[in-house]
Amino acid sequence: MNKKLIIVKIGGKVTANEAELEKALFAFSKIEGKKILVHGGGKKASEVAEMLNIDSKFIDGRRITDKPMLEIAVMVYAGLVNKSIVAKLQSLGCNALGVCGADLNLIKAEKRTNTEFDFGLVGDITKVNSKATNSILEADQTLVISSITHDGNGQLLNTNADAIAAKLSEAMADNHDVSLIYCFEHKGVFTDIHDPKTLIENLSKLDFDSLKNSGKIKDGMIPKLSSGFSAIKNKVKSVIIGNTDYLINKNNPKTTLIN
Amino acid sequence: MNKKLIIVKIGGKVTANEAELEKALFAFSKIEGKKILVHGGGKKASEVAEMLNIDSKFIDGRRITDKPMLEIAVMVYAGLVNKSIVAKLQSLGCNALGVCGADLNLIKAEKRTNTEFDFGLVGDITKVNSKATNSILEADQTLVISSITHDGNGQLLNTNADAIAAKLSEAMADNHDVSLIYCFEHKGVFTDIHDPKTLIENLSKLDFDSLKNSGKIKDGMIPKLSSGFSAIKNKVKSVIIGNTDYLINKNNPKTTLIN
Repeated sequence: MNKKLIIVKIGGKVTANEAELEKALFAFSKIEGKKILVHGGGKKASEVAEMLNIDSKFIDGRRITDKPMLEIAVMVYAGLVNKSIVAKLQSLGCNALGVCGADLNLIKAEKRTNTEFDFGLVGDITKVNSKATNSILEADQTLVISSITHDGNGQLLNTNADAIAAKLSEAMADNHDVSLIYCFEHKGVFTDIHDPKTLIENLSKLDFDSLKNSGKIKDGMIPKLSSGFSAIKNKVKSVIIGNTDYLINKNNPKTTLIN
Repeated sequence: MNKKLIIVKIGGKVTANEAELEKALFAFSKIEGKKILVHGGGKKASEVAEMLNIDSKFIDGRRITDKPMLEIAVMVYAGLVNKSIVAKLQSLGCNALGVCGADLNLIKAEKRTNTEFDFGLVGDITKVNSKATNSILEADQTLVISSITHDGNGQLLNTNADAIAAKLSEAMADNHDVSLIYCFEHKGVFTDIHDPKTLIENLSKLDFDSLKNSGKIKDGMIPKLSSGFSAIKNKVKSVIIGNTDYLINKNNPKTTLIN
């Protein structure tokens, strides 16, 4: 029988809200067995960029990561957010180890080039080091992974945290029953975000495609859900989209992705 | 026979100078056997603080770490400097794992209180987790430790990197032959820093005390050398003060601390 592994990705609006983050980390610390936390920290990075008078540049709503912006992402994600989470988890009795993808060569990526625009120092994941990840899990240590990777030639790369959570889940699914939880600011996926009655309890790939085509699911939800469906397709046992209430109590509302 | 362990602490003026850092990391990557790198990153933190319009506050030449300054220290030391070093070492074939003292509860500290002034969120080391450090060394992983610790109650603390290197050396000396190298911007300790002929090849504790009393050794050199002599007294095999040239070739000039 495969061992169970729970991978939780917490979103930028959770890490940026002290009370929500506290709630999420408390719930995460209570999860029994093997677990990994993945995080970004987008909002705080924008704040620091603004304070440093560095313009956040966007093309079609997607951030361009030039060198100053990469430095801020590394400082905020791999530094401030990651170590604050680790210190908090340690205080809750969870033996956390905070890393980025360069540490132990855990997540290798290559600079994105196959796009119309140059998004700068942004990485698409090429390899997850499941052997090293496994050793850490076997030592009963809890990885806290920030969304920075490297190319193996000394270059750090900004990488989507949802994609890291999904690729990591897929890589670990070879010898674990992996549950992937995307914990963000909403209760789940809605057909109308302004109408709480429209929460989708079970979302199939077919329904996702049609909601995407009709424009009812858009922006950051598209890559998040695409990552989630890729995980489901690649042997990950369950993918849930929910908020911190779900993390605290599994009976609370959420969206479950189904094949 | 004890295993050999080399602990290198690189100073703020080395980490802040791209060419010097490159040289130091290349030399460090070539060291065979078990090794640990310890770093701070003071100068870059001051630069970021200035860009953020946060005043660096000092009492008697010592920095006050208030909350905004701690956040900058965590961003710069545990984030930007640590991960840049890790990515570079990985590209040099050295399997680096970048951490701060909160990770795996490696270095616990308590807020400094026994002083005339409140230096803020500054930690004095209370415990080094030599068991976890040992496991990492046994897995042939190379720790890269930034000078941030935690109090175990969720609070990160700014901590002197020289002290971390010395306390870690002492803790690991129980079952290792530890060599501690302080690699900074000078060739070693001088009686007159402006006269290269006055390099002290072997510095005894007695000589140190008299040079300190006469004012010939001052400022940051005093805690650095005090840490070094404490290490020598506590079973650390050798303590060397030198620059990157020494790191590259052990025959180059340096200062050796002697009992």
